[in-house]
Amino acid sequence: MPTDAAPPIHPMQPSAVGAPLDLGQAEPTSRLLRACGRLAVDATPIWLMRQAGRYMPEYRALREQHSMLEVVQAPELAAEITLQPLRAFDLDAGIIFADLLPPLVGMGLSLDYEKGHGPVIHNPVRTPADVDRLGVPPADEQPLLAGTLEAIRLVKAEVDVPIIGFAGAPWTLASYAVEGGGSKNHERTKGLMYHEPAAFKRLMEKLVTVSSDFLLAQARAGADALQVFDSWAGALSPADYVRFVAPHLRALFGRLKAAGVPLIHFSTGTAGFVEEVAEAGGDVVGLDWRQPLDRAWRRIGFDRAVMGNLDPVALHAPWRELKPAVDDVLDRAAGRPGHVFNLGHGILPGTPVDHVRRVVDYVHERTAR
Amino acid sequence: MPTDAAPPIHPMQPSAVGAPLDLGQAEPTSRLLRACGRLAVDATPIWLMRQAGRYMPEYRALREQHSMLEVVQAPELAAEITLQPLRAFDLDAGIIFADLLPPLVGMGLSLDYEKGHGPVIHNPVRTPADVDRLGVPPADEQPLLAGTLEAIRLVKAEVDVPIIGFAGAPWTLASYAVEGGGSKNHERTKGLMYHEPAAFKRLMEKLVTVSSDFLLAQARAGADALQVFDSWAGALSPADYVRFVAPHLRALFGRLKAAGVPLIHFSTGTAGFVEEVAEAGGDVVGLDWRQPLDRAWRRIGFDRAVMGNLDPVALHAPWRELKPAVDDVLDRAAGRPGHVFNLGHGILPGTPVDHVRRVVDYVHERTAR
Repeated sequence: MPTDAAPPIHPMQPSAVGAPLDLGQAEPTSRLLRACGRLAVDATPIWLMRQAGRYMPEYRALREQHSMLEVVQAPELAAEITLQPLRAFDLDAGIIFADLLPPLVGMGLSLDYEKGHGPVIHNPVRTPADVDRLGVPPADEQPLLAGTLEAIRLVKAEVDVPIIGFAGAPWTLASYAVEGGGSKNHERTKGLMYHEPAAFKRLMEKLVTVSSDFLLAQARAGADALQVFDSWAGALSPADYVRFVAPHLRALFGRLKAAGVPLIHFSTGTAGFVEEVAEAGGDVVGLDWRQPLDRAWRRIGFDRAVMGNLDPVALHAPWRELKPAVDDVLDRAAGRPGHVFNLGHGILPGTPVDHVRRVVDYVHERTAR
Repeated sequence: MPTDAAPPIHPMQPSAVGAPLDLGQAEPTSRLLRACGRLAVDATPIWLMRQAGRYMPEYRALREQHSMLEVVQAPELAAEITLQPLRAFDLDAGIIFADLLPPLVGMGLSLDYEKGHGPVIHNPVRTPADVDRLGVPPADEQPLLAGTLEAIRLVKAEVDVPIIGFAGAPWTLASYAVEGGGSKNHERTKGLMYHEPAAFKRLMEKLVTVSSDFLLAQARAGADALQVFDSWAGALSPADYVRFVAPHLRALFGRLKAAGVPLIHFSTGTAGFVEEVAEAGGDVVGLDWRQPLDRAWRRIGFDRAVMGNLDPVALHAPWRELKPAVDDVLDRAAGRPGHVFNLGHGILPGTPVDHVRRVVDYVHERTAR
């Protein structure tokens, strides 16, 4: 286990957006890292969010034996699941198998994954006093997170492709913590934000501390890139996003610069304010499928890399429909440096495995230079 | 009951977008209709999607006694519910109390509203043969729709403010019909679209027939404006929207021109392709709250009216937060002719009644000319 002290609780840091991406001494050689740095590539890199998941029979077999919390704490199992899609497909990156919510457990929240209902937090954060009770322990002192760090080391010893570490963005973690699980309208979280803005800010600051500490620890464990998932950012109006959320994202991305690896900023439902999302940080902006990639990229600026954005459901389609959907994404990327091919959201459980293989190979073939 | 024959099943009609809005011989006098036509107004008109709803105690009292299907078939009850918010607040329009799904019943689908689970269709459309079995009976021969038509007549006899009629857009109705209820990923509907494109097209054409027939009948019954709800359009990629959905919307809006009343085109989750949504039709484009109104309006073009777009959850906030959120919408509208103030989605059940009143009055006060 690394013994580096956790970074201190952040003062708000200036955004590092626009600064050149320093990938260390030497130019990276992998397609993924080169694309993140907008360097020329021999073919467009591709990986798929939730690529280790229920659509794979070998994943289902393993998960029938082990719960999510078991897997997260057992580095050999998490590493095995991470490796499954890398064995099956010619993917350009792995993403460590983990979940967004385990960092909340070390803060004092009681987490369960209930079959068919998703995650449940039994003692959600509802009041300023609840916020003040939350701890911010270092990642490597938390069993659930230490398992992920060790899993990264195990995977790195097995494969040469870059491994992506990840964590939840502060707003998304706040919503899970306050709602006590998934939510349609995020009324309680926005309620805390509107009625108790000082407590909401303290909550977001604690989440930045925990998230950045975990992500920096993942980089120390060997993660080659770090992805921040802001799955619920699309619940916000642009005005609230800019005022209540973006400053904390800037603090987070500011701290993550110390990792010296590319930072990917993914959100969904934010097509109406991609400019503000990009401004909040990240070397690579992950786009959902509800927007034309070229238009979004133009709005963000071509001085940033982008990731995306095939509709996950298109992977269910027969090739005569799937191919034009892949072509549409590639056409809009127009061979510009800085495109990482991905889905616009996680791969769905019913996805045919052979469709995944065909898309991975086709993206490489069509973009080979 | 009107005995006008239903319009024939449509051949695809050219879009009427860009044509001047013909509101009949005389200029309208109501704020709503003037704003829809981008005429000068004495104050910005405001109404709220789902303004007749569970946040009102008088609504809850009535609904405790009567199911949704009972209310839709009982014109006196639907009229009473429609009138409740018009008595309580200084709103500039009423919207007839009804639901998106009753038109599916006349087509042959079996609909229930299950407590806490929303609508359920017991015989969903899954195959080309299922599509071919669907009927397209005229609205006024369907008991569930005839009730809505009669409710419009009753409400019109009571109040002077414009009454908005509405129906679901073909994609949104198709999704309910195919999934058999609400859906997160719309996999079955997209599955039909990708695997059976000819059957999907026939389904959309039937839905255009049923929806346009119902909307035209609502206009004949007295509706002063017609709103098309495409609640699920945001599940689609822009490419699929343009190819599989927009042609049917153009056919629908083309047929609705015959009503001679303003047409409102509302969708959610479409901030990434508002241009394409606007291009598909409607005199007024309804915007959800996930986009800055000024930016969306610029993308659509200022030659169209827009409606929106306060976050419904902002109505829960104390006035010190709610006022700036309302101001943000009004500032972005910038007093330009053609703004109808509304929420970016339906009002939520827990909304405080006095917040609604305060926002309605404040919008009028601040924009009084």
